[in-house]
Amino acid sequence: MMNKDRLILITNDDGIEAKGINELIKCLKGLGELVVFAPDGPRSGMSSAITSHLPITYSLIGKEDKLTRYACTGTPVDCVKLAINEVLERQPDLLVAGINHGGNHAISVHYSGTMGAAIEGCIFRVPSIGVSLMSHAPDADFSEACRFARMLAENVLKEGLPNGTYLNLNVPDVTPVKGLTVCRQADGRWINEFYTKKGTDGKTEFWLTGEFVDRDSQEPDFDINRLNEGYASLVPCLIDVTNHAFRDGLRGRLVVSG
Amino acid sequence: MMNKDRLILITNDDGIEAKGINELIKCLKGLGELVVFAPDGPRSGMSSAITSHLPITYSLIGKEDKLTRYACTGTPVDCVKLAINEVLERQPDLLVAGINHGGNHAISVHYSGTMGAAIEGCIFRVPSIGVSLMSHAPDADFSEACRFARMLAENVLKEGLPNGTYLNLNVPDVTPVKGLTVCRQADGRWINEFYTKKGTDGKTEFWLTGEFVDRDSQEPDFDINRLNEGYASLVPCLIDVTNHAFRDGLRGRLVVSG
Repeated sequence: MMNKDRLILITNDDGIEAKGINELIKCLKGLGELVVFAPDGPRSGMSSAITSHLPITYSLIGKEDKLTRYACTGTPVDCVKLAINEVLERQPDLLVAGINHGGNHAISVHYSGTMGAAIEGCIFRVPSIGVSLMSHAPDADFSEACRFARMLAENVLKEGLPNGTYLNLNVPDVTPVKGLTVCRQADGRWINEFYTKKGTDGKTEFWLTGEFVDRDSQEPDFDINRLNEGYASLVPCLIDVTNHAFRDGLRGRLVVSG
Repeated sequence: MMNKDRLILITNDDGIEAKGINELIKCLKGLGELVVFAPDGPRSGMSSAITSHLPITYSLIGKEDKLTRYACTGTPVDCVKLAINEVLERQPDLLVAGINHGGNHAISVHYSGTMGAAIEGCIFRVPSIGVSLMSHAPDADFSEACRFARMLAENVLKEGLPNGTYLNLNVPDVTPVKGLTVCRQADGRWINEFYTKKGTDGKTEFWLTGEFVDRDSQEPDFDINRLNEGYASLVPCLIDVTNHAFRDGLRGRLVVSG
């Protein structure tokens, strides 16, 4: 029976001690054999960074019935690579990354280590989901995020995902969440991204901060707008970032050979 | 006259001392006011990583006619954010990242710090290009890569790019390159990604390595296949990674509110 269990790889970017990943583990229990392979500390904002100039290591943290936990010195993407290449006995049936402390809507998908892990799973052709809660509080209430994460994990285990597509689930920090909406990644940017301090050596230090500015607050399909209305947002995302529609236009203005 | 010069921001992920960025500076001379704002050392494989838990700083390295150079302690994306938010007097007309030592074709766009910088420029709505040479040699011959980088920079300065689209240029390590092709990002993955060593503490250390495997070596539109034939590949890429075609399919299988 054990061998027929679905194998679910769980990781995150806040580290294995974070509340978000431990709530995720609880809410996925019963869906299969859970293997947690997560960074040994915070790795927020690591995007799809990989460690190529240093070695990484990992340690077994705990093993109980249908739940094995490992901590790794690498980035979220390193964790996925190491788990699938070297640790798991077979290809996972599902990867869930999160639950992130803080939203990964709009262009945050590009900076997020949580979404980096989901992208990496997708490159391995493991159906992959990133889950984020719109609160940075270490003791945030993850109950609504867990409800949607569980529902989505069950759906993806049953129906799979197209090759090259991963999912980005964001949940607002409200109770109850009004429902789930399928959205598109909002267009936006951050402004006022740094505050400065004088360092001990007299040099100006720049600390990252900033404020997200939506480029169209009226576009109902944008994930950020649905989140602001109290809905969870689900965006299906592509590994292939080619702008196919622009290829011919680009060809037309360059001297090209094909 | 000075104020009417086009402003070109140059960065990379191999660091300001790398041959690739210095060859890029040379080949872009004459196109406008060049500001180099690059990491103070190697930041390969940093993707779109941002530094949020530590401050970053920067230093003026050199200033001459129409060329100012700064070194920054952050990641490639940090460099772009800091330059545009705090250092440049106006929005650049063009960002060029590179020339990277090593190819960033296929899914490497997800791991590359060079491409992270181009993505960040694009988020700021600066027309942005990442340029990579398919050689990791510190003393590689960048002449062909420079030829295509210059041609592309001139074209983008003249014609711009659609909002939300950035360019990924890869150049094979051959002379002469046969020509330029407009491609799509190849589908593929890495295999055999780690080799192991025993660390001094007896723990197994994992070092990233690996071998790229194309999923369809017959697909002529895939960048890697054109590169292998001796052509430079140009892929227009999107900030919006939404799989729009799959949104309805996903809606149909979930209980959704919109």
